[in-house]
Amino acid sequence: MYKLVLIRHGESTWNLENRFTGWTDVELTDTGVAQAKSAGALLKAEGFEFDLAYTSVLKRAIATLWYCLESMERTWVPVLKDWRLNERHYGGLQGLNKGDMAKQYGDEQVLIWRRSYDTPPPALDANDPRGQRQDLRYAKLDPSQVPLTECLKDTVARVMPWWNEELAPAIKSGKRVVIAAHGNSIRALVKYLDNIADADIVGVNIPNGIPLVYELDADLKPIRSYYLGDAEAAAKAAAAVAAQGSKKA
Amino acid sequence: MYKLVLIRHGESTWNLENRFTGWTDVELTDTGVAQAKSAGALLKAEGFEFDLAYTSVLKRAIATLWYCLESMERTWVPVLKDWRLNERHYGGLQGLNKGDMAKQYGDEQVLIWRRSYDTPPPALDANDPRGQRQDLRYAKLDPSQVPLTECLKDTVARVMPWWNEELAPAIKSGKRVVIAAHGNSIRALVKYLDNIADADIVGVNIPNGIPLVYELDADLKPIRSYYLGDAEAAAKAAAAVAAQGSKKA
Repeated sequence: MYKLVLIRHGESTWNLENRFTGWTDVELTDTGVAQAKSAGALLKAEGFEFDLAYTSVLKRAIATLWYCLESMERTWVPVLKDWRLNERHYGGLQGLNKGDMAKQYGDEQVLIWRRSYDTPPPALDANDPRGQRQDLRYAKLDPSQVPLTECLKDTVARVMPWWNEELAPAIKSGKRVVIAAHGNSIRALVKYLDNIADADIVGVNIPNGIPLVYELDADLKPIRSYYLGDAEAAAKAAAAVAAQGSKKA
Repeated sequence: MYKLVLIRHGESTWNLENRFTGWTDVELTDTGVAQAKSAGALLKAEGFEFDLAYTSVLKRAIATLWYCLESMERTWVPVLKDWRLNERHYGGLQGLNKGDMAKQYGDEQVLIWRRSYDTPPPALDANDPRGQRQDLRYAKLDPSQVPLTECLKDTVARVMPWWNEELAPAIKSGKRVVIAAHGNSIRALVKYLDNIADADIVGVNIPNGIPLVYELDADLKPIRSYYLGDAEAAAKAAAAVAAQGSKKA
């Protein structure tokens, strides 16, 4: 049996400001740093050890992994950073306030942008300064790989090759893996692992900074999965994520 | 022409306490964190960019690299951690105070232990709790690779294969590399790069947290090398390192 641990980054400055973030590279808040340390403390208390860690190329996930491993006294664990684990690209919504958008376009439209499986938000213009095509960290990618917007289906389409080429072989080789990533790159993994229908993934929310443990069989099919620590706190945190796009949020 | 940047970790708790550290995994002090951030600020101000970073598996070097890259806003740069960049193993001296040892054995003996090219300090017993053979991070190495003591010659003997197999090919492939490591793993590199005789390397001291830049030709021979920032401050810091083993220190 294998174990895989997924952690959504701790609270970011734009989580706090309730803004659509996507590929914008925002910092963790002090709360986010504390969440990351507390994730590490939980993993350490439960005796988890890792041979390999993955994260995105966005600092809120990279820093979450750093503080988590620091708190486990395991900063020496190898870390691989992969753009394919980045958050879903939020296109023209990047930087805008979720509540403002709900007031302007209605809760329903914002829910579609946030959670529809195959309807992306309006695309960024390729020259929009909010875009990433001039960003050094993506310089070696083909420009077509650097999105101007994404729906979850698009995110799944880049996360799954990474699963097949990188993660699945690593797990099968016996490596114990932790992944610090984002709400939607983790939802892409959860959708695949739990075989969740396109229509049902809308209801799945990932709380910030709480380790989600999957126990997998020899074919990497889930035997069970659970949040580490206080189950009620994890459920509350997930519900808060669901409510972010509402006018009341 | 290639550029290579070497950074000795910032001040550690045992630098502050003037204790022999070696492979003991001690933390940075607040001063050490500030030195690492300041190294990053200098590199950023001078327009340095990196495609790849190397460090040891000891947290004082890993954290130095973290704070340096964070301060450059480049935490997404790939980082490889390699035990061959660890500090020289200080054997039976690990944990002991440099000044106490000088009082007990004399400045000359301590200078031999600290700086002799081929005389190692007394070895640790294989079962000494100060040793690393039970440490998870070295579990995949052959026990003979995990030293019980080292002279600088021994450190050179593990650093040079790393240079040949890892670093030299990376630089020649065009990767701009920064290395956050330790006094003696950096002295091993400097000895090789500057072709310093065994008898002369005793006089070379590497200050904490100041980027040392090498400009290399196509054959990776140095064209010139210099410390970034205030040259006088770098010279003072190096002199302070030289004085650590004295009774007066």
